[in-house]
Formats: sequence, structure tokens, C-alpha cells
Amino acid sequence: MTRDRIYLYDTTLRDGAQTNGIDFSLEDKILVARLLDDLGVDYVEGGYPGANPMDDAFFAEPRTTRATFTAFGMTKRAGVSISNDPGVAATLGSGAPAVCFVAKSWDYHVDVALKTTLEENLDGIRQTVEAAVAAGRETMIDCEHFFDGFKANPDYALACARTAHGAGARWVVLCDTNGGTLPEEVERIVGEVAKVVPGSHLGIHAHDDTGQAVANSLAAVRAGARQIQGTLNGIGERCGNADLTTLIPTLMLKDAYAGRFETGIAPDALASLTATSRAFDEILNRAPDAHAPYVGAAAFATKAGIHASAILKDPKTYEHVTPESVGNRRRVLVSDQAGKSNLLAELARLGVAIDKADPKLDTLLRLVKEREARGFSYEAADASFELLARRTFGEVPVFFDVDSYRVMVERRFNAVGDLVTVSEAVVKVRIDDEIRMSVAEGNGPVNALDSALRKDIGKYQDEIASLELVDFKVRILNGGTGAITRVLIESMDTRTGRRWMTIGVSENVVDASFDALVDSITYKLLKNGHAGR
Amino acid sequence: MTRDRIYLYDTTLRDGAQTNGIDFSLEDKILVARLLDDLGVDYVEGGYPGANPMDDAFFAEPRTTRATFTAFGMTKRAGVSISNDPGVAATLGSGAPAVCFVAKSWDYHVDVALKTTLEENLDGIRQTVEAAVAAGRETMIDCEHFFDGFKANPDYALACARTAHGAGARWVVLCDTNGGTLPEEVERIVGEVAKVVPGSHLGIHAHDDTGQAVANSLAAVRAGARQIQGTLNGIGERCGNADLTTLIPTLMLKDAYAGRFETGIAPDALASLTATSRAFDEILNRAPDAHAPYVGAAAFATKAGIHASAILKDPKTYEHVTPESVGNRRRVLVSDQAGKSNLLAELARLGVAIDKADPKLDTLLRLVKEREARGFSYEAADASFELLARRTFGEVPVFFDVDSYRVMVERRFNAVGDLVTVSEAVVKVRIDDEIRMSVAEGNGPVNALDSALRKDIGKYQDEIASLELVDFKVRILNGGTGAITRVLIESMDTRTGRRWMTIGVSENVVDASFDALVDSITYKLLKNGHAGR
Repeated sequence: MTRDRIYLYDTTLRDGAQTNGIDFSLEDKILVARLLDDLGVDYVEGGYPGANPMDDAFFAEPRTTRATFTAFGMTKRAGVSISNDPGVAATLGSGAPAVCFVAKSWDYHVDVALKTTLEENLDGIRQTVEAAVAAGRETMIDCEHFFDGFKANPDYALACARTAHGAGARWVVLCDTNGGTLPEEVERIVGEVAKVVPGSHLGIHAHDDTGQAVANSLAAVRAGARQIQGTLNGIGERCGNADLTTLIPTLMLKDAYAGRFETGIAPDALASLTATSRAFDEILNRAPDAHAPYVGAAAFATKAGIHASAILKDPKTYEHVTPESVGNRRRVLVSDQAGKSNLLAELARLGVAIDKADPKLDTLLRLVKEREARGFSYEAADASFELLARRTFGEVPVFFDVDSYRVMVERRFNAVGDLVTVSEAVVKVRIDDEIRMSVAEGNGPVNALDSALRKDIGKYQDEIASLELVDFKVRILNGGTGAITRVLIESMDTRTGRRWMTIGVSENVVDASFDALVDSITYKLLKNGHAGR
Repeated sequence: MTRDRIYLYDTTLRDGAQTNGIDFSLEDKILVARLLDDLGVDYVEGGYPGANPMDDAFFAEPRTTRATFTAFGMTKRAGVSISNDPGVAATLGSGAPAVCFVAKSWDYHVDVALKTTLEENLDGIRQTVEAAVAAGRETMIDCEHFFDGFKANPDYALACARTAHGAGARWVVLCDTNGGTLPEEVERIVGEVAKVVPGSHLGIHAHDDTGQAVANSLAAVRAGARQIQGTLNGIGERCGNADLTTLIPTLMLKDAYAGRFETGIAPDALASLTATSRAFDEILNRAPDAHAPYVGAAAFATKAGIHASAILKDPKTYEHVTPESVGNRRRVLVSDQAGKSNLLAELARLGVAIDKADPKLDTLLRLVKEREARGFSYEAADASFELLARRTFGEVPVFFDVDSYRVMVERRFNAVGDLVTVSEAVVKVRIDDEIRMSVAEGNGPVNALDSALRKDIGKYQDEIASLELVDFKVRILNGGTGAITRVLIESMDTRTGRRWMTIGVSENVVDASFDALVDSITYKLLKNGHAGR
């Protein structure tokens, strides 16, 4: 049986950017686009060109995505000609091969918000689609408030959909903008629309205001829609958009869908879905939701109780899908065995050879558990993990010792009366029993420390010339200023482009940063193949 | 038209207690039971008597709930007589007026986990129900793995349900124990069961492993079930149980359900649902999920430039229910996409009076945009926003000036050869032209600064005695150690329980923290009603 293709449209960078508390930087947007491309979604909606300087900068970046890069915009306003509409021009001028225009489809909104006639709104949809198609763009119309509009005036809502389709739109996307529509309503209404516009041209855009964005998206698919719009980890305005990290495994692993449909996601990418979801939270610098379907740390966890021993006997009957299929793992108490096999798998991945009977493996397992209990998170910091493992196995030379450091931050009025803040660091390093002291200033304590530490490490100095810090993340692990601080540092070798992550944990943010900096330099030297002393 | 009654069964204290990371104390359980009773659910499942000392202690407490207090347990084991089964005895002996016994209904599990015959399992169900009914208890059977069991062997699964009902069980609850069943499957299977056991005796127990616990519960109701089991804020094993804080408003506010069904929840209790949800998180000592349907802080928040002005014109068409109906509130976020109308709405909410024609409003808008471009995020920091607004309007006195501060972090070997890190801060404050210098140590630079700053602010000292820092968040806004750092500080007045958020942004993490600390103290003094100098 041939299976219908379901197209996945990601709006993390557009609707997701509307999330309360989320502000993407340009660097964030570039990283997220890369994540989405590796995942294999069909469309990446990059943002709203012309709406803010950030999106303009992002659209000006060179595009390397395999996914169809899409610009969001609004249909032509009433009272201006299509060639004079600055919004349409900005969207078409963005260079994106696909464009998605939002259009009103609820008669009430046309009246109240647009203050134009119903006919003029249809005309705006038609002209906008025609202009975009003429400009060679793959064209989509987001029908805003479609379901509320359909309930109020089905003929008009249908006319909007039909007009967009008739003018040549590849996709007509039915949006539940308020998020309040129920799955049974979505299924019925999409079924009605599919009589007018073929389902192969219909998309669904659901929000989670009744906790049913996923159910609504699947209801639309059952009724004929073949494009789903959603976001990574379900971010989005208010309660969020449909969560692609939930929808993708449901579509691919549940017989009811996998038997009828196929997506563009490769099995490999599905098996990395948990890592993708965590990497996205890392970019957002927020703790992952442990209870997220499929990808949450607790999604396959069982607390000691009536199920635990049965699960160990026969996990399949207690798990609706296997954790491995989405790159997650089973967590049951008494998991020393499971812990050891995880560790072995991770070491193999990093190319660290160790016999599984070697008692050093138990030492490493104990160390990892001990340190993770203190706040370390080696999942995110593979360079620090590799150092810890190789140190435990006696494979890491001591390149240098840091005898002491001192950092000072001072805010005061300078000689000309301006308020200034200066940061200065002094580091005392010992290499081959020779002491080297360095001092440096920086625009913050960590920057000053980094400069001082890398100013003079003697015979290794040349080898760290290409080391650069590219990212620095701080997370407070529990409340208050006396809390534990976890610092993650991403470094890059500018010669090879290779990146690695190191970690430091301390009550003191400076101390945690310093440990992560030292790990980064040590890792670089180790990878240079040095024997040390 | 008479409406069918839907019964709500809360399992927060039993299945919720299986949540990874949640451990209720006895005091917690008492508080949660009171919350549930005030909410008005029909049944409160208190726990599993005989399974652990905590639940025994909780069941020994005097009962004052109006809700039917329910004890959980397991049906009679094979090979013992009903009068000799210690589990059944513990459940019946708990004193609870209702009992809920879990029973296998998947033939495979009867075989593998129970190692008994299918007939003996049915016999155990029958004898357990009969014993509980004879003991005068309202009796329920949780059919474990019912949906997987039905798919594998529908006749046997139905036999379990029919046996329980025939023996006198008030409720036969169909459990999706693995959480992997889809809504369309739930609707079809519950429909089949309702041909054998009347829907008025059927319950649904759904888990969120495909993100559809709410949709599954509602699908069961459409197919005839009249009891829903769920938890507060959707806590529960793995991905959680069906979320009652989502289900209750959907049942009561959505026409499709409110027109056909009624619950035992009073309109008043619905209007306190947000407070109930937050109070529960308070008991769990965790941050509420801002994106939760209906009750999340962001559930009625809008950031979108394109929606904000329309929402203020006519909120109803942009909100699927009114925020007031669930005790939540509308928020139009102040962000870089903000216009004057966002600003006015936010000022009105904060009680800051300003005429909309006042040119100071334009100054404030310009300041907000300028600062947000530099990395400030006022949507998260309402106290800093209020200070900025009132300062712009000339309403904030200068309580104190900080002439200078100096922080030192030093790592070195101490006299006994241990590596130690010390942080020390000196702050010079001027109040009424009098200089006060304070010095303090801390476990990190920010903690030291906080202590030094709050050590002596002269005549205001007593007023900040009840100020406490409860959370501290750091976000690096772009790559590298030379990046911009945003610090958010949450403070609390321990006397009133009032909380507020302040923000600082700088290249220097210490500087950013310092600014947020100063804002927090200033805000506290302002709210104390001080005129300052």
C-alpha cells in the first residue's frame, strides 16, 4: 500500500519566537535552523522579514538548509496596490524560496480588525498569492482564526480557503489561532474544507490552549490535511504550538499513522530526537521538561513500585514504544547494570577503549554518579566527560597546574567622573616547576580570567592560539544567590572548526567558569596528541 | 435538557506520588487533600494503605473531606483465600469509605506477571469486589492495561470489566497504563465496552505518553464513560496523568461539553482554579508551568505585535475563554514588538496612572525599546519595569547612591594546604550625604555583593529586613565570554509573601547582578511608601 506523505512545517523561529520569555539571538536562530535541518523537517519558517531588525539580519544570512526556507508575512492590506504594499514586498524580497502569508478568514475580524469588506479581503488573498506565485515562490496562506471563522460563517471561511487555493497557493493552512478548538470539531471542519480544497493542499496549525494541540493536528490529518505546523518542544505563543517532538514519533511509530503515512524524517534522525530536543533547550538555556512525551528524562522512567520489577522482566509490555527508537533511555531504580552499559556505549562513541570487566569502569561510574549528584551534567559536556574518563583510566598528563588565581571587579567613578566597571585577573600557573604569573583585564570576571589564563602557558602557548571560546552558559541549579552554579563553555578550534563543550560546577560562578576554562585548554592539548610531562 | 453527571476522581496523592522527583510529606498530603476538597472533586484517592508507612500515617489521620476518600489496593492474589489476603485486608481496613482495586485485564500480563490462569484472575476480581461491597465500601476496579489488553484479546478484557460490574463494582475504570493509546482508539474501545457495562459505570484513566491524556479522557466521555481520573497539574508517572486543571475548564466552559454534562465543581471553585494550581506547585516547591492551558501565567499572554492592539480592542475574539473564568488574567507583554497600547495596558495593570496623551509615555516607549535592544527583557521583570516607568514619570525618589563597589574572588591554597576560593565585596553607599562602607564575604561574588549591599543602608535598614532573594537566573545573550549577560533576580517579602522580579544587563555578570539587586531594594522601599529625600 502506498502511504501518503505528511509534510512537517516548523515555525519554531516565527511562532516560537512569540513565546513569553523566549528571545532568540541571531546566533540562536542559526543554531536552531541547523538543528531543524538535521532533524529533516520539510519547511523551516525563519521569521517575519521587515518586522524587526533581528529577522532581517537572519534572512540576510547565507542559506544552507535542505529544508525549504520560508518567510512569514501578511497578505496585502486594503487600499494599497499589491506592488505598493511594503509588507508583501519585504516578504517576497527576503530571498526565501517559500512564503507564508497570514490572512483573515473570520468575517468578524475582517470587519473589526481590518475594517475592510469581505470581498476586498478575498481580493487581497488572491492578489497576494498571485504575486508570490508570479515571483516564483512556493506560496502558502495561513488562514487565521479559521475554525472560529468557520463556526461563525462557514461560507466565508471556505471562500478564503478556496480563493487561496484557486490563486495557486501550494498550501492552505487552517489555523486555530485562539487554540480553543476541540479535536472532534477540527476533524469535522477539516473534513468539510477537504470537499472544497484537496486535502493534499491543506495544513493544520494548532495551539495548546486546551492541552490538545497534538490531538488536533492528528485529527486534521485523519480528516485529510497533509501538512502539520508545529515547533520544537512545543514552544509558542500562550500555551504553545503543536509539539513536533511529540508528533514526529507518533506519526512514525504508531501503527495507526505509520501504516498510512510517511514523513521526511529519517529513522536516524528519529533515533536522535531526544538529543535534538535537549540541544534546543540548551540553546534556550532552560531545563528540559522531564515529563515531555517520548523525549523527557522521565518518559521511560519508573519509580520503585508495583511496576518496576515487571518492567525489568519484560519492558516491552510496559512501554508503548521503545526508548531507543527516539534516542531516550529506560530508567528504573537498581540500574547499576544499565548505568554501566550506558557508560560503555558513550565511551565507545568517544573512541575511549576500555575492557568491560576493567574495575576502573566501576570507579568511573561512581565518579559520574557522585558528580552528577553535585550538579554536573555530562550529557551536555562531552569534552569534560572524556577528560574525566581518561583521567580515571590514567591517560591524561598534567600539562600545567594553577597555583592560584585572583579576580577583581570594581565599579567606581574614573578621573573624568564617569562610572566605570573594570575587571582584572591574575593567574599563577606552574609548568615543569616553573612559575608563570599573568595579569589581564576583561569586560567581565570570566573574560579577564580567560585572558590571563591563556596569556602564558609556556611551551604550549602556540598550540592554543587557535582556541576560541564561542559560547558560555550559566545555569543556577537551585534558588537564591547562594545556589549551585553550572557553567558550560563551548570552545572551538578556529583552524579545524572542531567544537567541544566543558563544564564547571561550584557555588561560585567564577570558580565554575574557571574549571570549565581549564578543562577546555586541557582537552585541546590532549587532542593535539601531547604526552605532557 | 438534563445533563449527564461527570464524576471527577483525583489520583494526585496516589498515581501523582509515582512522579519522578515528587515526594509528598504527610503534611503535603494533608494540604493537597484540602486543596482538592475546596476544588470540589468527587473522589480523592489518598494512597495505597499497607504499601508504605507514609500512606498508613495519612490514612490514620482524621478525615474531614466532603469528597469521597478512597483507598487504593490490589485485587486478591491467586492461591490465597480472600479473607487471608493481606493487601485486600489493608485496603478494606484503611477506614476509607471507597476502595479502588487494580486488576489485570491483559491476558498476557495475567500469564507473565501474575503467573496464574485467566479464570483465576476473573475469580480474584469477583471475590475482591464482593468482599468490598459486603464490607459496605463503594467499590471500583482499575482495569490495568485495558486498551492494550483489549487489542490483544477483546473477549478477555471485556470479561474482566463485566465480572467487576456484575460483582457490584460502582465503577469499572479503563486504564491506559502505558499511556500509548490514541484518542480514536479510546473512543472506539470505550464504545465497545459500553455495550457490556453501562457508561454510567465506566471510568477512564489516561496517561500523557503521546501528549493526549486530555484528548483521551474526553474521547472516553464522548463514548459514554462518566468518571475521569486525573491529577492536579497533570503530575504522574512518566509523562503524567490527565491534567484535571485542563479538563475541568474544558468540561465546564466549552459548549460541546458544558451543554451535555455537569460536574461537581462549583463556578466559584472554577474561578479559583489558577490559584489552586499555583498553590499546588507551591506545595511541590517548584516553579509553575507558565504555558499550562488555562492556568499558566502565559495562557492569556500576547507578545505578537500583530495581535496586541486588536486584543486590547476586543479581547473576546482572541481568547477562547475569558481569563477571569478560571481566575487567570490577560497579559499583553512589553517587548521589543510593543506599541503604546501594550505599554498602557501594562501600566494600568501595575496601577501606574498616566494620561495616554502624556509625552512622557513616548519617552518611556523609546527607553523600553532602547533597553530591550541592549538585552533587557521587561516582560519577565515587572518590578524593574515599574521602576523604569515611575522614574520616567518622576515618581521614584533616590533612596541611596552607590558610589563604588569592589568584589574579589581568589582561589589559593590556605595555611593547611587546602585549595579554597573566597569571595569578598566592599560597597560604598551614600545616604543623605553620609558615606557608609560595608564589607562582606559570600560563597560567590554575587552573594558577597548582596550581603555587603544589604548590610547597612542607614535609616532604611529595618525596612529591608524581610527582603529575601529567592531566585537568581543568568542568561548569556550571545556567544563568547565577552557576551552580554542578563541577570534576573526574584525577591520575596517574607512578611507578606509578595514576590517581584528585577533585571540587570551588562557585559559583566557581577555588574548585571548588582543592578538587579539595587532595583530589588529600591522597589521594596518604593512599595513601603517612602518619600525618600
